[in-house]
Amino acid sequence: MKAALLAIGDEITGGITTDTNSAFVAEQIRAVGVEPVAFFAAPDDPDAILRAFQRALEEADVAISTGGLGPTADDLTTACVARLASLPLHEDEPSLRAIETRFRERGLEPTANNRKQALFPEGSTVLPNPIGTAPGFVTPVDGKHVICLPGVPREMRLLVKESVVPWLASRNPEERFASRIFSVFGLAEAALDELLVGVVSPDEARLAFRAAFPRLQTRVTVRGAPGDDLEARLDALEERVRERLGHHVYATGDAGMEDTVGKLLREHGQTLAVAESCTGGLIGHRITDVPGSSTYFLLGVVSYSNEAKQQLLGVSPQTLAAHGAVSTQTAEEMAAGVRRVSGAALGLATTGIAGPGGGTAEKPVGTVCIALAWEGEVWSHRYELGARSRDWVKGMTAQLALDRVRRHLLQTSTV
Amino acid sequence: MKAALLAIGDEITGGITTDTNSAFVAEQIRAVGVEPVAFFAAPDDPDAILRAFQRALEEADVAISTGGLGPTADDLTTACVARLASLPLHEDEPSLRAIETRFRERGLEPTANNRKQALFPEGSTVLPNPIGTAPGFVTPVDGKHVICLPGVPREMRLLVKESVVPWLASRNPEERFASRIFSVFGLAEAALDELLVGVVSPDEARLAFRAAFPRLQTRVTVRGAPGDDLEARLDALEERVRERLGHHVYATGDAGMEDTVGKLLREHGQTLAVAESCTGGLIGHRITDVPGSSTYFLLGVVSYSNEAKQQLLGVSPQTLAAHGAVSTQTAEEMAAGVRRVSGAALGLATTGIAGPGGGTAEKPVGTVCIALAWEGEVWSHRYELGARSRDWVKGMTAQLALDRVRRHLLQTSTV
Repeated sequence: MKAALLAIGDEITGGITTDTNSAFVAEQIRAVGVEPVAFFAAPDDPDAILRAFQRALEEADVAISTGGLGPTADDLTTACVARLASLPLHEDEPSLRAIETRFRERGLEPTANNRKQALFPEGSTVLPNPIGTAPGFVTPVDGKHVICLPGVPREMRLLVKESVVPWLASRNPEERFASRIFSVFGLAEAALDELLVGVVSPDEARLAFRAAFPRLQTRVTVRGAPGDDLEARLDALEERVRERLGHHVYATGDAGMEDTVGKLLREHGQTLAVAESCTGGLIGHRITDVPGSSTYFLLGVVSYSNEAKQQLLGVSPQTLAAHGAVSTQTAEEMAAGVRRVSGAALGLATTGIAGPGGGTAEKPVGTVCIALAWEGEVWSHRYELGARSRDWVKGMTAQLALDRVRRHLLQTSTV
Repeated sequence: MKAALLAIGDEITGGITTDTNSAFVAEQIRAVGVEPVAFFAAPDDPDAILRAFQRALEEADVAISTGGLGPTADDLTTACVARLASLPLHEDEPSLRAIETRFRERGLEPTANNRKQALFPEGSTVLPNPIGTAPGFVTPVDGKHVICLPGVPREMRLLVKESVVPWLASRNPEERFASRIFSVFGLAEAALDELLVGVVSPDEARLAFRAAFPRLQTRVTVRGAPGDDLEARLDALEERVRERLGHHVYATGDAGMEDTVGKLLREHGQTLAVAESCTGGLIGHRITDVPGSSTYFLLGVVSYSNEAKQQLLGVSPQTLAAHGAVSTQTAEEMAAGVRRVSGAALGLATTGIAGPGGGTAEKPVGTVCIALAWEGEVWSHRYELGARSRDWVKGMTAQLALDRVRRHLLQTSTV
């Protein structure tokens, strides 16, 4: 089965928003053996949208669109699909009630515009949207199908996983794909590619790489018929991949370093506190993105000023004067200080120059010091990350710091 | 003049890589009055690429492709354009010499594959690529044009700026576009749309909306001839938009709330410290994403535990016992505490239940308290944001808290 994907909206063709939805849909549907063969994007113009749907159905058995299901006047997808299929619009009672309930829960009344989101081409199957006001739908068109999804990525992703993928799988009985993702840190993409040469032959699996800073992933995909034990084949491949990449693999699946660190802290029954200077709260933010992190994360201090470093963390004025705020010495005192103040088992600290200003010849932008303190010991390191963007320096420092906690816990592992 | 954009490569349609090139090209060409009217993406398949070019030229005066100009067998763009235009391929001497020079400089010999990158459809204009081996080219096709660019973003961007934009500007003397973006908070998308009804007529400008949580933006676009004062028209429209939306507009342009808060803090010569519980460092992270924030951001404390709230911020055990950690009373003491400890003019605090666990009947997931303390005074509020995802609750709480600082500074404005 072939699919063509269609992103709708002026913000896409106008260059305001990058269409990330189509790549997500493509990746998900491949897993159930549906081949994405073309992408289209059209502005909020009914004729352009109609032509895009017609072309999508020329290329494929199913056209999957994202966007244009909102309540506003420039949301035209539903009307265009009705025109494409020559079907009248029909109000769906359950969808209308769901929209009304959502608004009432927030003490609001739906507007006439919102009622529009309960209209679908007659004969469509509605795909409920439990987290937004725009349901998706499937409409048959001349023996093929159009599937329309909301453009909000969070809602689109939920509908793809819960409705679209099962619907496609049930109509595509011949082929199955299975994939496994490995999340990697500490290797460049080209180095990862070279390390895996010969580990997986093209006959047994397909390898793909994806760099979504600060994450680097490799995906292994195997292909078979329904009933084949694709998971067993992936298990065997995983063993070989992990043997080659070692601790560079920090997780199986699309996980953040914070997930792995959280899992290890729980397993080891340890707690963590963080003193952040150049990362500005990003490490605390990432750690607390993990549900249940309050059981192991005790305290974060964003000590942007020297006063805060001294007063709250007990960094000595002599250290600051002799070595500066950006030094391994200061980082070590910050790590030990936040550990002491919080009573955590581990104290992690970052200090550095995120830029664009503040660099000197001796400590250029991208100079970063990371320290980790534990019972009676402290580790620290100075990195020269280079004068990249402020975001990049913050993001890479946070990743390096979290990775240090991971490697520390793996080394001290008695499990 | 209209343009259709075409991204070529299996990695795009396979969902491995997100096509960010087309959005870049779209944004750049709009500035010289070229309207991007459709996007297409095709896999590394010659028939699919040919159909995509044909469709692109049905939609537009010029088709601009990215990708498929590399040296390998799956790089098919040039051959497809030659077929589309019914032109033979012709070796371009200067391009061949440039490729040979690039290789020699690195002590390598170009392969036969690399010579392929010096072949172009006869009559094409070559667009030199000083930073890579794949030049771009412009080929006339039946009174229209095809422009082919390499897919490597860095090379593509250079060619767009140095070759494509000047080429298009010289051929599009009639039209110019200008846009202005307004960043909005405190209104749902449908409410924003309704508020703007009648403020801007479709004849004078086009409105587009974009929700990229927690940002909501509206973009106003006007159209005219070269020499028209489009900025003056945008100024007049801005006055009407701002009159209608008031303080819901927090910035002109694609700005974060943290940019506006930083700007206001500088203007008012004030400093800020933050005590975060449920936001876990996100507010500090966002504030410190702004270059130069160290001049006004003094301290962040991520007081995830009650001990931290008491010890570092001086929240009283009685308050915690009587009202709980998630209460306006605790938030107020956190805000006053972080202000006192840091010596900042403003102390901001958040405490809440981000979920998915931790909710009770009285304080369900999504219950959030925000407080702001300043000289002799403190403001606080309890919000019921609803049991959405953990990310969403953190993101919305951070946005509400930063917006509170903004509104406070606007109210106390003496400027």
